[in-house]
Amino acid sequence: MSEFPARKKQKPSSGEAQERVDWRKRKAEKKEQKRKWKEAKLIEQLEKQNQAKAEEEKMQQQCQEEEEPKAEGRLYTVSIALPGSVLDNAQSPELRTYLAGQIARACAVFCVDEVVIFDEQGEDTRTVQGEFKGVGKKGQACVQLARILQYLECPQYLRKAFFPKHSDLEFAGVLNPLDSPHHMRIDEEMEFREGVVLDRPCKARKGSFVNCGMRKEVQIDKQLQPGLRVTVRLLHKNQKPESRVHCGVVVAPHVPRTEGGLYWGYSVRLASCLSAVMTECPFKDGYDLTIGTSERGSDADPTPLPPFRHMLVVFGGLKGLEESVATDPNLDVTDPSVLFDLYLNTCPGQGSRTIRTEEAILITLSSLRPKIATSDHNKR
Amino acid sequence: MSEFPARKKQKPSSGEAQERVDWRKRKAEKKEQKRKWKEAKLIEQLEKQNQAKAEEEKMQQQCQEEEEPKAEGRLYTVSIALPGSVLDNAQSPELRTYLAGQIARACAVFCVDEVVIFDEQGEDTRTVQGEFKGVGKKGQACVQLARILQYLECPQYLRKAFFPKHSDLEFAGVLNPLDSPHHMRIDEEMEFREGVVLDRPCKARKGSFVNCGMRKEVQIDKQLQPGLRVTVRLLHKNQKPESRVHCGVVVAPHVPRTEGGLYWGYSVRLASCLSAVMTECPFKDGYDLTIGTSERGSDADPTPLPPFRHMLVVFGGLKGLEESVATDPNLDVTDPSVLFDLYLNTCPGQGSRTIRTEEAILITLSSLRPKIATSDHNKR
Repeated sequence: MSEFPARKKQKPSSGEAQERVDWRKRKAEKKEQKRKWKEAKLIEQLEKQNQAKAEEEKMQQQCQEEEEPKAEGRLYTVSIALPGSVLDNAQSPELRTYLAGQIARACAVFCVDEVVIFDEQGEDTRTVQGEFKGVGKKGQACVQLARILQYLECPQYLRKAFFPKHSDLEFAGVLNPLDSPHHMRIDEEMEFREGVVLDRPCKARKGSFVNCGMRKEVQIDKQLQPGLRVTVRLLHKNQKPESRVHCGVVVAPHVPRTEGGLYWGYSVRLASCLSAVMTECPFKDGYDLTIGTSERGSDADPTPLPPFRHMLVVFGGLKGLEESVATDPNLDVTDPSVLFDLYLNTCPGQGSRTIRTEEAILITLSSLRPKIATSDHNKR
Repeated sequence: MSEFPARKKQKPSSGEAQERVDWRKRKAEKKEQKRKWKEAKLIEQLEKQNQAKAEEEKMQQQCQEEEEPKAEGRLYTVSIALPGSVLDNAQSPELRTYLAGQIARACAVFCVDEVVIFDEQGEDTRTVQGEFKGVGKKGQACVQLARILQYLECPQYLRKAFFPKHSDLEFAGVLNPLDSPHHMRIDEEMEFREGVVLDRPCKARKGSFVNCGMRKEVQIDKQLQPGLRVTVRLLHKNQKPESRVHCGVVVAPHVPRTEGGLYWGYSVRLASCLSAVMTECPFKDGYDLTIGTSERGSDADPTPLPPFRHMLVVFGGLKGLEESVATDPNLDVTDPSVLFDLYLNTCPGQGSRTIRTEEAILITLSSLRPKIATSDHNKR
């Protein structure tokens, strides 16, 4: 019996031995399998990487193909600056909003790339005194103007993402749309689109999903922070109709302009005073052509524009640029003309004693447009 | 006693005779006096007439003296035409009024002499059908636009006389003033002033009294119907400070422009359709330079303006000049360009798909202004 159990034991022991052998075998087998799997995975990954690389190269090729009409690109920029106080010239909150909309439209019509709103009243220092600001006024002029300009510049399909309810936008219903090229309709097919990065999980080696205002979402080449506004180059040629997403690559916001020659809206910047408009210029070497506008400037008609890369046109408010200079703590001069390369009267012989700033933008940019078009930008 | 009475009688009879003689004498004396008075009156009248003549001559001399800077006169005119339907592009009655004000200001800034509002919708035929015109709309577009343009052109001190309360002007409070040279302040001294003939008795050989918005009234050289709007040339040099009135002469409304080179506001005209804008031209030989504006026009930049005397610039509405041509019962063409001497795009490379008519006026007139200034008007 002892044997039996021994046998039994053996049996089990032999069974155990057998089991042990089996386990060893299985372990080895498993190890082998794991190795193989790992190898397979590596190969797969490498293959994927190669594929991705190939795809990327393909994309780049396509991009280059799509980039071909680079000759149409526009390398120069046009910025304008005006005091936010112009809003205080409006008679009601609706008209205040409408006035901001007029400025936005003037910028869009003349392809302005940057709008700088400077403070002519030193608002931030005055607010502590609790100055009475009059009835029917909504928000600080500079900030409200900036907000409305940004709101109008933003494509309609992105406004929900970037513009939560705000009292500055209470009368946004009166605003006329900019209708500029980057405000695209849902089915419009174009190389570039503005989008917002969506808060959606995406696989490790895949890019984020972006809402570009199309029927399908766009999967970009990078993983970016959700909520970010991006300019996307859509790879239409790479597009399969059955695919659940479009594919695209993120580009710098200037690319539609510099490569496609498209007008792509304006950026908005706040400046604490007139001098900060120039000193805080976002372009590396600053503005290389600054123009002040005034009835007291020299006749714009016979004045050609020198070659430039980054032009800045500055408008005064209700009391002209003289007031902007006077309220600037950094400026010792009283004559605004010394601040600018050119100090121009763009409407000689005006039939009204005053020209409102929202009118002056249209008048001046219409007067400068042919000069800008014929200025030799390549010289810079 | 009988003698006594006879004496008495005689006395009285002799007294009667004496009286008779006295009466005759007095009659003769009176006659003589009358004759003398009449003579004196005649002499006085003649003297007065001579004096008046002398004064008139003096005035004329002074007028000629004041007329001397005739070299500054402007002989050409600029007219614009646009469909009244642009008002229907506004979102509220306030903004409808504001939009009309924008058009008025654009005209003033660029010294437009005539604004023609044409009907693009055949409103007068449609009204009988009681078509629903939408909420918040005030008045027929063409008539309302004309009324607001006229209201703004009228100097403030004359508005009470010419613009009784009207629903078209309900929101006139939102309008920005034109602030053009003929809108003078009470103490401003200028050669010309707009005025209204007052309903006041004036002596037979004296002229009517006119309210020219000055502290004193102006007595003109003619007797005119009360309520008439007149352009007055003030004879400042002839003015005595102690005089109760200013003196002036009535001139044609074009004189401040043709002789003084001043911008003197615009006239407003309604036209039943686009073709009537041209056919009902108030200038004897019609417009000698007509310009249509369109995104589909040729580039305005390289196009110089031929010499002209009466220029007309026509703007389309929401749907462009194509719509204005299509709704005109007198026009068989579909292409608006054949109607005009020049068909111009005054904003090539626009950064918005649409340009609103109120913007187009500023943009186009700013673009044409240097061309108008350099056009050789003397050739015509």
